[in-house]
Amino acid sequence: MNIKNYLEQKRSLVEEAMDRFMLEESGPFKKHIEAMRYSLFAGGKRIRPILCLAAADSICAQERTQENLLPVACALECIHTYSLIHDDLPAMDDDQLRRGKATNHVLYGEAGAILAGDGLLSWAFDLIADRGKGNLTAEKRLDICHMVARAAGSLGMVGGQQLDIQSENKEIDFDTLATIHRSKTGALITCSIMSGAIGAGANAKQLHALEEYGNNIGLAFQIIDDLLDATATTEELGKTAGSDAEHGKATYPLFFGIDKTREKAKAAVDNAIKALTLFDHRADPLRGLANYIYSRTN
Amino acid sequence: MNIKNYLEQKRSLVEEAMDRFMLEESGPFKKHIEAMRYSLFAGGKRIRPILCLAAADSICAQERTQENLLPVACALECIHTYSLIHDDLPAMDDDQLRRGKATNHVLYGEAGAILAGDGLLSWAFDLIADRGKGNLTAEKRLDICHMVARAAGSLGMVGGQQLDIQSENKEIDFDTLATIHRSKTGALITCSIMSGAIGAGANAKQLHALEEYGNNIGLAFQIIDDLLDATATTEELGKTAGSDAEHGKATYPLFFGIDKTREKAKAAVDNAIKALTLFDHRADPLRGLANYIYSRTN
Repeated sequence: MNIKNYLEQKRSLVEEAMDRFMLEESGPFKKHIEAMRYSLFAGGKRIRPILCLAAADSICAQERTQENLLPVACALECIHTYSLIHDDLPAMDDDQLRRGKATNHVLYGEAGAILAGDGLLSWAFDLIADRGKGNLTAEKRLDICHMVARAAGSLGMVGGQQLDIQSENKEIDFDTLATIHRSKTGALITCSIMSGAIGAGANAKQLHALEEYGNNIGLAFQIIDDLLDATATTEELGKTAGSDAEHGKATYPLFFGIDKTREKAKAAVDNAIKALTLFDHRADPLRGLANYIYSRTN
Repeated sequence: MNIKNYLEQKRSLVEEAMDRFMLEESGPFKKHIEAMRYSLFAGGKRIRPILCLAAADSICAQERTQENLLPVACALECIHTYSLIHDDLPAMDDDQLRRGKATNHVLYGEAGAILAGDGLLSWAFDLIADRGKGNLTAEKRLDICHMVARAAGSLGMVGGQQLDIQSENKEIDFDTLATIHRSKTGALITCSIMSGAIGAGANAKQLHALEEYGNNIGLAFQIIDDLLDATATTEELGKTAGSDAEHGKATYPLFFGIDKTREKAKAAVDNAIKALTLFDHRADPLRGLANYIYSRTN
């Protein structure tokens, strides 16, 4: 299979759905909606929604399943986008550039950016819980909602970001770095995959395998992010390169050096693919995605 | 009935449940959890969770119904608390004092406060969607989840806060003020009541009446907040008095003067009570709450 075509096709499916589901820039809240839409449509690879749809494909490659999961897929991207907006704030990483464009607070002010993030997080749960969007049972929808709230919240992404910030300019041990990665990035990535699997009706054995795949993909993703921050240019990244070192953040390259870090990324990708043994060709997109994530390192 | 006893009994029920449901201050996210707990337990009248439980009482006064709704009631207080934390931020109202105590960012820094708010919002949906907490059908839980997300989000509380901020120091018309009040405060209050009613199995006629009650209570609540900001002292309020005028915010007293504003609050309270005609004595707590809210003006 051609993973680039697959990614492109799903990305355009997701972006079309986001535009369809998202509030329109009109009425009394026009400015706020404009701020949310700005960051939501400022580019991005849409990895989380695509992982959600690809996990569903690995269980049941039906068009209807994809259509039913689109609100969940879009919700995952809303949550990812909100986290970027808040991470970029002056009180956090104070970044001016994201995906080659001005960050949200540069354009809409700090208050506007905080609220754009808050709005996107709320909207994500609105989308998942909306029985008028997509055809999933209430039970599946609720379980996805719970899993997403857990992954995005204090024991996941939000807790990880706090831990990341309070570890800046401090010597932390590797366990703490691993906890930061797992919670800040890994939790939502694994949850994206599990959401798609639950929505498509995966059984316990399949869920377990996909969780293993997710954990490894999440790990690879974060290792590679650390690697690129240390080795790529601002132009290549679309965000400020060398930002980790500047903020005194512990990273994989800091612990292991560049070469060993690349090896660890490869090992995580291999483990992810190994976790898919029980799946047939319908999991090829997930396999391709694992390799695609690794290919960013070269 | 004695409304003060009722309020006190429900308040302690809610606070005990919040403590039970909320994460413990331990593990890698200890500091973040401490920040959330600080604001969650910094006092507060717990009006939203009590409205939720009182609405359930008006339909079905059973202890089990209350127990089943406690996660939802606590979630509503989490959302209210998150909104206060974010509203108090330097980038928003820049308040140092809330309920007579230092605001969250004063103690935990801006980043810590933003994340404490983000964590509480996520936790709210975690609570509502958690089938292990309380015994509600997946359908009811999901409908409550959707309603709460809508009320808390861009068309409700978050949108209202943005509109409020962008209207500071501007001459706005009364329609805009009404929209700010309805979205920023009214939406979550009405939603608190509707959540309790849905959880307790209200029929369409009851839901309609309770929505009418909620809209009027929400209106009264905000009018009285405006009034107290203009007339009470910082000591009485536990937060900085005169903050609306200082921020150049339009308020009811600014449009109508103090006396006429008090009359409008009374009219809203009367309309709220009138909406309850079809309910028997089980709605007495809701009637008492309406009068209690008005009594704050004296």
